[in-house]
Amino acid sequence: MDTKRFSDPLSLQQIKVTDNFWKKEMELVRTEVIPYQWDALNDNVPGAAPSFCMKNYKLAADLNARKKSDPSYEQPVWTTSNFELVPEDMDHLEERFYGFLFQDTDFTKWVEAVAYSLTQHPDAALEKLADDAIDVVCAAQLDNGYLDTFYIINDQSKIFSNLRDNHELYCFGHLTEGAVAYYEATGKDKLLKTACRYADYIDSRFGSGEDKCKGYPGHEIAEMALVRLYHATGEERYLNLSRFFIDERGKKPYYFDSETDHKFTPKPGDTSLRHFYHQAHLPVREQNEATGHAVRAVYLYSGMADIARLTEDEGLLAACNTLWDNIVNKKMYITGGIGSTNHGEAFTYAYDLPNDMAYAETCASIGMVFFARRMLQIKPDARYANIMERELFNGVLSGMALDGKSFFYVNPLEVLPKACREDARKFHVKPIRQKWFGCACCPPNIARLLSSIAAYACTENEDTLFVHLYMGCELKKKIGENKVSVQITSGFPYHGNAAIEINSDVPVQMTLALRLPDWAEKCTVNGVTSKNDEITDAILSEIAASTDVSSANISDGYLYLSGTWSGNQKLNLDFPMTVRIMAANPSVREDIGKVAVTYGPMVYCLEEADNGNNLHLLRLNCEDPDFKITPDAILGAPSITAKGYREEGEKEGENLYHVYQEPKLTKCELTFLPYYMWNNRGEGEMSVWVRKM
Amino acid sequence: MDTKRFSDPLSLQQIKVTDNFWKKEMELVRTEVIPYQWDALNDNVPGAAPSFCMKNYKLAADLNARKKSDPSYEQPVWTTSNFELVPEDMDHLEERFYGFLFQDTDFTKWVEAVAYSLTQHPDAALEKLADDAIDVVCAAQLDNGYLDTFYIINDQSKIFSNLRDNHELYCFGHLTEGAVAYYEATGKDKLLKTACRYADYIDSRFGSGEDKCKGYPGHEIAEMALVRLYHATGEERYLNLSRFFIDERGKKPYYFDSETDHKFTPKPGDTSLRHFYHQAHLPVREQNEATGHAVRAVYLYSGMADIARLTEDEGLLAACNTLWDNIVNKKMYITGGIGSTNHGEAFTYAYDLPNDMAYAETCASIGMVFFARRMLQIKPDARYANIMERELFNGVLSGMALDGKSFFYVNPLEVLPKACREDARKFHVKPIRQKWFGCACCPPNIARLLSSIAAYACTENEDTLFVHLYMGCELKKKIGENKVSVQITSGFPYHGNAAIEINSDVPVQMTLALRLPDWAEKCTVNGVTSKNDEITDAILSEIAASTDVSSANISDGYLYLSGTWSGNQKLNLDFPMTVRIMAANPSVREDIGKVAVTYGPMVYCLEEADNGNNLHLLRLNCEDPDFKITPDAILGAPSITAKGYREEGEKEGENLYHVYQEPKLTKCELTFLPYYMWNNRGEGEMSVWVRKM
Repeated sequence: MDTKRFSDPLSLQQIKVTDNFWKKEMELVRTEVIPYQWDALNDNVPGAAPSFCMKNYKLAADLNARKKSDPSYEQPVWTTSNFELVPEDMDHLEERFYGFLFQDTDFTKWVEAVAYSLTQHPDAALEKLADDAIDVVCAAQLDNGYLDTFYIINDQSKIFSNLRDNHELYCFGHLTEGAVAYYEATGKDKLLKTACRYADYIDSRFGSGEDKCKGYPGHEIAEMALVRLYHATGEERYLNLSRFFIDERGKKPYYFDSETDHKFTPKPGDTSLRHFYHQAHLPVREQNEATGHAVRAVYLYSGMADIARLTEDEGLLAACNTLWDNIVNKKMYITGGIGSTNHGEAFTYAYDLPNDMAYAETCASIGMVFFARRMLQIKPDARYANIMERELFNGVLSGMALDGKSFFYVNPLEVLPKACREDARKFHVKPIRQKWFGCACCPPNIARLLSSIAAYACTENEDTLFVHLYMGCELKKKIGENKVSVQITSGFPYHGNAAIEINSDVPVQMTLALRLPDWAEKCTVNGVTSKNDEITDAILSEIAASTDVSSANISDGYLYLSGTWSGNQKLNLDFPMTVRIMAANPSVREDIGKVAVTYGPMVYCLEEADNGNNLHLLRLNCEDPDFKITPDAILGAPSITAKGYREEGEKEGENLYHVYQEPKLTKCELTFLPYYMWNNRGEGEMSVWVRKM
Repeated sequence: MDTKRFSDPLSLQQIKVTDNFWKKEMELVRTEVIPYQWDALNDNVPGAAPSFCMKNYKLAADLNARKKSDPSYEQPVWTTSNFELVPEDMDHLEERFYGFLFQDTDFTKWVEAVAYSLTQHPDAALEKLADDAIDVVCAAQLDNGYLDTFYIINDQSKIFSNLRDNHELYCFGHLTEGAVAYYEATGKDKLLKTACRYADYIDSRFGSGEDKCKGYPGHEIAEMALVRLYHATGEERYLNLSRFFIDERGKKPYYFDSETDHKFTPKPGDTSLRHFYHQAHLPVREQNEATGHAVRAVYLYSGMADIARLTEDEGLLAACNTLWDNIVNKKMYITGGIGSTNHGEAFTYAYDLPNDMAYAETCASIGMVFFARRMLQIKPDARYANIMERELFNGVLSGMALDGKSFFYVNPLEVLPKACREDARKFHVKPIRQKWFGCACCPPNIARLLSSIAAYACTENEDTLFVHLYMGCELKKKIGENKVSVQITSGFPYHGNAAIEINSDVPVQMTLALRLPDWAEKCTVNGVTSKNDEITDAILSEIAASTDVSSANISDGYLYLSGTWSGNQKLNLDFPMTVRIMAANPSVREDIGKVAVTYGPMVYCLEEADNGNNLHLLRLNCEDPDFKITPDAILGAPSITAKGYREEGEKEGENLYHVYQEPKLTKCELTFLPYYMWNNRGEGEMSVWVRKM
């Protein structure tokens, strides 16, 4: 492990996003998603199933207060196995927990997004709203530090009795992420202290000590959250607890088997299969295939990468790399989507990537972004950043409508709207984005990711600034006692140009590491052009000279410019974007005979609105596609047109089967738009993959 | 309705199957399936879940006897909603019903197969076995005629309280089918009388009278069974009861909504959708799309066809034809398989025919055979017979292994064994035939169909013998007071030749109606050859002359030879079989760019055993396939080889996605075998559809 290349994301106080593309997305989150989310968690969205999130916190706080003022007060005990999602009589609620058992996270995800948003766009009213809500949340905490309203309200004797199913440690993880984010954004530590007290309580119950519980999260996230808490507080206990969860996972005898409170009991004999879903079938260092629930999986792997870096654990890093490769080389849609089945929202076997029944949950793509950034923090290798970029521009953004008002959980690569309504196998695929979800994970997850997008653009260590994404921003980089200002502008995602301006009052020794995107064949640095895979020492010298630094090197897809920087220096970069026809590994049965069109980092797709229905009858002329790019053609994005053919469709009264005759083809123009923009013009067919001619 | 063209199947006493192909299948049923089935329904199959069928009948009989000997005996009442499939302690069974609630039909289906088998192969020991079992079954009948052990044993107060789910009228239907078959085969009427008493009881409870219940079967079959009972007894009440069930179905308010004993209640608001599954969403005459559970559907349509014919109901016949066309032109696999989803074992929407997730239940194909024969009885039109033949040689026979020892419920058109084990969406698709099923519908259904296959080969009316299938057989046809002997020999299904020998001691006026199969382009009749679609009057005269009859006509795909027959007359027929490349209607998305290979009535497929794995990489050279037929090449059947190509597979270390390059193709030979024979040489990939070049 080359610890010198380790890096960390920049504090959001240090970096301001100015990017045309991303700023717009962030503004949608700020102006649409965050207010909507607040209404949702306060049950103020007409027509939507109530969240009960704040109601639950208030009730828990109330019960605490009651017990304090009257020690003889006996709290009623409710069953924890049959909780009510939506009570029959909304006007006469009982004093019990309502909603999904992870409903606390509606608030903790919201407050995390709020925190990030405040760093980029201060807003006193919003901060006040959050502060007041935090008061309620903190009042719900038990004296011992425990804070999960489901068990606080329903039955405190059952705390930590069903880690596998009941999401307590997941809720803790989101509380912690939110608390750290809010502390880092505002300097206010009330929620952070609450998270610490809860973490301390968990630490007192879980661990390697003889009397301690050997359990671990049923839905991972606490692993990476504890690492953030460790960063924020310097408390090694939190790092160790995270490591404990990771080390303990998948050991035999299986901890989850010792729990007796499960609602669903797997069949006897099914000794290891049943743990795949939770990535608890094997010790994590022995896992070599991404399995089970995709979000859980990538959240775990993100935590593993954190621990591998912080504890310099080569074995754990090797497992991370094996799992990364398994996903990227065997189990990922071209859009970055992962988890190809709705059965368990899970990974299946290698190369099983059905386009019309994909799950490809938005949250799983977000989790891949977490994983990628953490791998980049260990080793700046463009293969991680390339995937991170692909996820962001495709599998993540497709989850939200262009107006920020509706969302996809599931991100299919092929849609026939009729099938989504009439074929039970595809009921999980929605032909149109939804306003909100009872189980609201994806919209708030998009909100917290997009609000903190700057934390993915660059990372840094003592002397190096790594530019992973060419995102317009202004940042300050400390070099020793000095501060260097860096301003990045870019034409991404539709133009491959970027400019980096560095200002330093005094000369500083610094390295700038610039990712060479995998979709570009060439790069131009201050006028020096080369093919990406043919950058010779001579060219590097020329680049170094042109940029006025002492050395230029290439390593793992990054161009390193090192030397003394002073005054105002400018770098002009260009990574020419071209339309590329992509094919899948021939082992992907669903994509055989088909191709996909990409442009720079963007995967494109066909929509019915531009191409008529029956997209399966279309074929792309791969030999002579004659691609044409028209700027701002569709919803403000460039469209791509190409030569294609339409196969003759059904003839009036045609039999279901007939003697084969060469089908008649009519020349036509195919029109592609960026995948993430699909379904912003009403319902219709969509397909990423098109048959080739 | 042209009642002169109506016809009936021949009594199995009148016709003996001698066909090489079918006789072998019948012998498998006689020697393998029927004995195995007997063991199964007596819980004597080691390793298989017990049926409890005969145990339930015995217990019901015992309870009856107890009550008769001791009128004060109080039978315990069990819940009818939580019945036990397999009790935990097999050694200490309680006096209650066990197994599926339609378990009675394990016996009634068996006795029906036994009956048919006895007509073709008398067997005193088997008949004795059946007689003894019938004694037990009849003893289980209540004094009022009711006979369903589930309710007799568990709770008689609940009789007919849940027609939608609980299969009572389905069990009645199978009892009736078995009883009529056994009576017709043996002349013994004990079971028939029992069925009549039960029918009378049902008739006393259901009907249009004011006090009567307006219910109808949740799983259809009683409709066609009652028609058989009417034929066997001449009792018009049975015909009327069948008609009542058909007329009442789907009327509003929905009868099923009035039942309160349902285990599953559909959501409010879901007013008509929920009845699609049972084909009870609309009055049957208004139904124009095949919906819901495929077996239920085609059993209903068969009953509708019976009633349409017997009551000369044009409206009902029109509905039958509409539904027939909807299935055949929109919802049927090329193998004849119907019901393309496992969700409800049901039809979906038009052209939704996924190959690797097909349900295509063997029983549904069998139901299509029932439907087809009944449509043929109304109108001898080859389009019904062509489908009937396709079902028999493909979708039905694929349900049973060549050794008669294992069975498929589900008949996919494409299989990747790994997917069946690892992808929950395909868990219903088995990569290998199973020994038996707890819910044993398909194996006994195959047994009763194959044992009575002669009833599908020909039908007759007063003066005409219709030959629908060219099946080797010997039959007697009554013409007035005389009996004509007819002997058919044929090379089917792999050779299109057939010979028909007619012997009549005295000259008789008779018409022979011979189906011209849709897969043959030409036909030769006694040396006179013509293209099927170009048979002129001159050719017909020539044919008439050559066969020594006075007239030859073509109508609806049948050649009618009419005149005086006497002495010994021979017809030599030939329908040359060719290999045909078939394509699906371009609206079938799953088959676009693909073709299937057929030979005569047989659909062929590719198997891994002959073609290696990764069948999706193979392509058929459609322009120059150079088909070669090798007799007896695979499992005794002719193989078909063709020129093809194998696309280059995965290269070592290949990325999941790469810039498209024209794939490398290697010439290879493709080897096809009859679809119904797939999976008789161990587990492996299979595909009916192959990509075209």
